[in-house]
Amino acid sequence: MEQFLKKAKKASKIISQLSSKIKNQILEEMAKALIDNCDYIIKNNNKDLEKARKNNLNSALLDRLVLTGDKVQEMSNALLAISKLKDPTNRVLDGWVNQDGLNIQKVSVPLGVIGVIYESRPDVTSDCAALCFKSGNVVILKGGKEAQNSSVAIVEILQEVLIKNNLAKECISLIPEYTQEGVRKLLKQDKYIDLIIPRGGAGLIEFVSKNSSIPVVKHDKGLCHIFIDKYADFNKARKIAINAKCQRPSVCNAMETLLIHQDIAEEILPLFYEDFTQEKTKLLGCEKTAKIIKVKLANEENFQTEYLTNTLNIKIVKDLDEALLHIARFSSGHSEAIISENYTQIEYFLAQVDSACVYANASTRFTDGSCFELGAEVGISTNKLHARGPMGLNELTSYKFKIYGKGQIRA
Amino acid sequence: MEQFLKKAKKASKIISQLSSKIKNQILEEMAKALIDNCDYIIKNNNKDLEKARKNNLNSALLDRLVLTGDKVQEMSNALLAISKLKDPTNRVLDGWVNQDGLNIQKVSVPLGVIGVIYESRPDVTSDCAALCFKSGNVVILKGGKEAQNSSVAIVEILQEVLIKNNLAKECISLIPEYTQEGVRKLLKQDKYIDLIIPRGGAGLIEFVSKNSSIPVVKHDKGLCHIFIDKYADFNKARKIAINAKCQRPSVCNAMETLLIHQDIAEEILPLFYEDFTQEKTKLLGCEKTAKIIKVKLANEENFQTEYLTNTLNIKIVKDLDEALLHIARFSSGHSEAIISENYTQIEYFLAQVDSACVYANASTRFTDGSCFELGAEVGISTNKLHARGPMGLNELTSYKFKIYGKGQIRA
Repeated sequence: MEQFLKKAKKASKIISQLSSKIKNQILEEMAKALIDNCDYIIKNNNKDLEKARKNNLNSALLDRLVLTGDKVQEMSNALLAISKLKDPTNRVLDGWVNQDGLNIQKVSVPLGVIGVIYESRPDVTSDCAALCFKSGNVVILKGGKEAQNSSVAIVEILQEVLIKNNLAKECISLIPEYTQEGVRKLLKQDKYIDLIIPRGGAGLIEFVSKNSSIPVVKHDKGLCHIFIDKYADFNKARKIAINAKCQRPSVCNAMETLLIHQDIAEEILPLFYEDFTQEKTKLLGCEKTAKIIKVKLANEENFQTEYLTNTLNIKIVKDLDEALLHIARFSSGHSEAIISENYTQIEYFLAQVDSACVYANASTRFTDGSCFELGAEVGISTNKLHARGPMGLNELTSYKFKIYGKGQIRA
Repeated sequence: MEQFLKKAKKASKIISQLSSKIKNQILEEMAKALIDNCDYIIKNNNKDLEKARKNNLNSALLDRLVLTGDKVQEMSNALLAISKLKDPTNRVLDGWVNQDGLNIQKVSVPLGVIGVIYESRPDVTSDCAALCFKSGNVVILKGGKEAQNSSVAIVEILQEVLIKNNLAKECISLIPEYTQEGVRKLLKQDKYIDLIIPRGGAGLIEFVSKNSSIPVVKHDKGLCHIFIDKYADFNKARKIAINAKCQRPSVCNAMETLLIHQDIAEEILPLFYEDFTQEKTKLLGCEKTAKIIKVKLANEENFQTEYLTNTLNIKIVKDLDEALLHIARFSSGHSEAIISENYTQIEYFLAQVDSACVYANASTRFTDGSCFELGAEVGISTNKLHARGPMGLNELTSYKFKIYGKGQIRA
């Protein structure tokens, strides 16, 4: 592995200096290469699918694993889209002349070598490769083992384009040992790797956090809350709650718990009950809720659970402060919303809630790189350091200070 | 420890919401309290000094440990200076309205709870306390054991001001177990602590990096290089080299290795020899250097050493590329400089060198929060994530997105 990492480090020096023009041209060639080799990709994907069916993989996982001609076209389009984005490196972030007359410029630069550990989704392979390449970073990829054949094929195709352009194939590569033990070793290579991005379930995130000596930007779970204030507009509240829970329950920005101000509970709960029943949402509620509508009683564990299914906890709270206490205790720091028409309540909520994204009168489902119009999404960080919330290309950069002098020395 | 950390976390919610006015007022009161309790501080400092002399602490360490009336006045002045700085929280870093009409604001917020582990310098105790307080963060301090009595006294005084202002004393506190074992336990508390900043020697940095499950921003060693290009202005080169090495050899931004282009070596080396001999600098050099001036031969280990003393390595290189290779191999990523009048050489150097600060025609000694006019210096980060180079108050913040909607849901 050390030999490989040395090459990766060396490649990062080269790739960090490529012009935007050349990077974009190569991304376009990669987009074309995916299409040209569509059959090869699908052939390898079929191997993965066969194995997955033998191992009785559930349908949701199979669904994420399968590649079709259309899907490969989408992957290719994604690369083209990334080629059209603004280069995140060499942005002058700040600049000034100090009292000594030094011209100080703070300039964005690539991070270096990035490890991405992700689920069994072959399309993530080409996406992450392109995002890292565009931002001048070397990437080491490790997808789920169920998608290994597909990932190998995709990386082969991208590497051919690199080689044709006289670049080291280590600019984009799979981890040399495609096993958990391989990942464990990789996580100790802080001498060579600058950042690890884990994407996936709680188990993976915990494994990486515990074992990594490299800085980690986590794409962790989303346990999101919406608080319906007593000053809420009921129409907005109903529309937003349904959207946040039911539009796509399997994602991290979906709502898990609905908090309702006690003063409006009796009036609004039957309406919510009607809405959610229509959406076949499984409802759990606190004791007070159970007195108003028909729900199973929710316990402490329910409030700690990221369901990722069409299941919702409901809790009646005394006031905004009790809602804030509940959120502080159970939130994963991802996305929270207040529904209210009261200026003071809203500003208090937005200031107090310590989450990456805090909403007034909008669905938590908007926490997303595309909704934020970042151009591309690397992930949604639940870290507080380096990057928080939806991460785009800019978040794959560091910076350095370039200082232009004319012979100055320190007094 | 858990009980204490719970209180610290709770305090961080309060302190994060304090207005600038109140924070500044409290900092002013703290500045006054240090002066009012100067005798008490010095009395406790004397206990540390007595113990230190018994343990034969070297004079450099004793020098950093000792507090006098003047020194306490300086500490107090530093607090006043920090009270006058702009509040780093609640800055709107970015903002836009997306296609859905959501008003998205990226706003700086405190990180939460910060652990600072530092050397035996009592003045760092009040400095770090004030910087964290100003930026709305709770701080847990652990200074060197030689300064324990002084630090306890200083923190007591600051806490009295907190209590008088109805704030939890946990806003500023020492680690409950003031031992290495205590530090080891602290480093595992990622549930409560958001950032660890270690300041000090290589041993401490390594201990913290290895044992921390909390994100670490390192204030690591500085192994800084200056490359004298063949197009250098000799006067600038001599002035800058002497300044970078000799003005204060014990600091991280001092130069350790001077790289000289071979085409000018014979001409410039005797001049450097004269300069450095006058400054009593101990010189080591590569074989080629040893043929031109009288130096001890430098080996691989010398090039890896951050001397922190008036000792210098000299190496003759074939060209800019060889200089860059040497720097890539031995630099700690802190500060590097090129001395040249050639535009292309300079721009190439500044682009290629992967260090926090890269200089053209200026001394590396400028890598410093005060020279960069950041108002205050928390440290100099050799990390690439979150913050790089001189860190001011802004680098003690994270951000969150406040999103103002009017009922939007995701399609």
